[in-house]
Amino acid sequence: MTFREKTAEASGRAESLVCVGLDTDPARIPSHLPSGDEGVLAFNEAVIDATRDLVCAYKPNSAFYEARGCAGIDALIRTVEMVPAKVPVILDIKRGDIGNTAEKYAEYAYDVIGADAVTVNPYMGFDGIRPFLREGKCVFVLCLTSNASVGDFQMLETGGRPLYEVLAEQAVEWSKEGEIGLVVGATRKGLMRRIRDIAGDMPFLVPGIGAQGGNAAAVIEECGGTGGEVIINSSRGILYASSDRDYAEAARKSLVCLRNELNTYRNPDV
Amino acid sequence: MTFREKTAEASGRAESLVCVGLDTDPARIPSHLPSGDEGVLAFNEAVIDATRDLVCAYKPNSAFYEARGCAGIDALIRTVEMVPAKVPVILDIKRGDIGNTAEKYAEYAYDVIGADAVTVNPYMGFDGIRPFLREGKCVFVLCLTSNASVGDFQMLETGGRPLYEVLAEQAVEWSKEGEIGLVVGATRKGLMRRIRDIAGDMPFLVPGIGAQGGNAAAVIEECGGTGGEVIINSSRGILYASSDRDYAEAARKSLVCLRNELNTYRNPDV
Repeated sequence: MTFREKTAEASGRAESLVCVGLDTDPARIPSHLPSGDEGVLAFNEAVIDATRDLVCAYKPNSAFYEARGCAGIDALIRTVEMVPAKVPVILDIKRGDIGNTAEKYAEYAYDVIGADAVTVNPYMGFDGIRPFLREGKCVFVLCLTSNASVGDFQMLETGGRPLYEVLAEQAVEWSKEGEIGLVVGATRKGLMRRIRDIAGDMPFLVPGIGAQGGNAAAVIEECGGTGGEVIINSSRGILYASSDRDYAEAARKSLVCLRNELNTYRNPDV
Repeated sequence: MTFREKTAEASGRAESLVCVGLDTDPARIPSHLPSGDEGVLAFNEAVIDATRDLVCAYKPNSAFYEARGCAGIDALIRTVEMVPAKVPVILDIKRGDIGNTAEKYAEYAYDVIGADAVTVNPYMGFDGIRPFLREGKCVFVLCLTSNASVGDFQMLETGGRPLYEVLAEQAVEWSKEGEIGLVVGATRKGLMRRIRDIAGDMPFLVPGIGAQGGNAAAVIEECGGTGGEVIINSSRGILYASSDRDYAEAARKSLVCLRNELNTYRNPDV
């Protein structure tokens, strides 16, 4: 089964385009939970239990676990194990290195952590991306990100076009060798459509809804609305919907709200 | 003490511009050593003991340790502890993410692993770089790398110039906020000089000598030859100089050979 099929099935079952970003910060979890990674695990377990039937994927960002060394890595492995087998896990690592090193990062993501997909950085070219291609796995290449300083680089003009469009075209070529998707920030109104035009039906992983200010209607309109074709991530808006004992229930409510809003835009006639 | 001062002192003591890349692969260490991370640690300890008086820095690449999860991270921490306190450690992680995530990676590199410097990827702009700036630490931004597929991206023209030159210019701006260096591949003959012209006396971390085919004379001629200003990395050529019981001795010989060759080009009249 391809990553795309797995995601489309999960998305169909849950009637949801929402991916929950498990970027759990021990400093932000409710104070009644244990400190450190014990608390992170209890928190993640409750959030996964409260959201598993309503997501198309989960996306932990490795940084939030690496920051605590071995204990954090262990919590990440155990978190991925908590995710139902039918729900894909995208490990957000944004790695990019030369071939023999990228192979090691692929081992980390797939063999150590057990992810179904990864995010990678294209600055070093396809050399650093190819080692992540494996059967059933998908590689999401950073294209146009949601943060403020993208102008430093991604927006530069080359050959009369912005860099991220050139990148999207290259990714279409690379996708002949395996499953490749693009990371396209929800804050990029007007530009998401241009990338979709270039990328055909390639899967988009869309961060930036919620805390970062992305617009849900624009994402659906410009990126498309099929499960497996667009995966819309929300992290802080769901994880920290409440800072109290009702955090898991509040996470579910926040997720339902975003899922339903997105579905409204998908089926405007219903 | 700044990173640059620490490196200049180490470089001066050792009369060496060479940084040893501790990218130890358990599959490539001599067969008489224990398997897995026990073997990696024994190997690293012997290599560090045999080279510590002749290097200006060490540069472990995190991928080679992450690939084995907790055990690998633990080996990386212990490896960094083996390095003499006066010799700087550059952790090669090539991370790049939005601000709140980059902060977590900075914790990983500096607080968990104990590095003096890191490598970062500029694709997301300065947002992803600023959190790595700390007193006494240095951030090496990927500029022009040594691998084959740089043409996919770094070489693209923008405003009549290649992208890596624009990046070098931006890095000069960023360096007003903290210690910033550039990663410049040794395989880029003719281009290294252009980057040095833009970057003034900013520290360069230069991979690509040895296994990747970089030319030592060109590196010194184009990048400059002052300790702290140019740090020339060799990994495989030193680590795997012998696959037998004499590996540490062979590593030292290979290092001496590269160090002396580089010094010849630094002092052509001596």
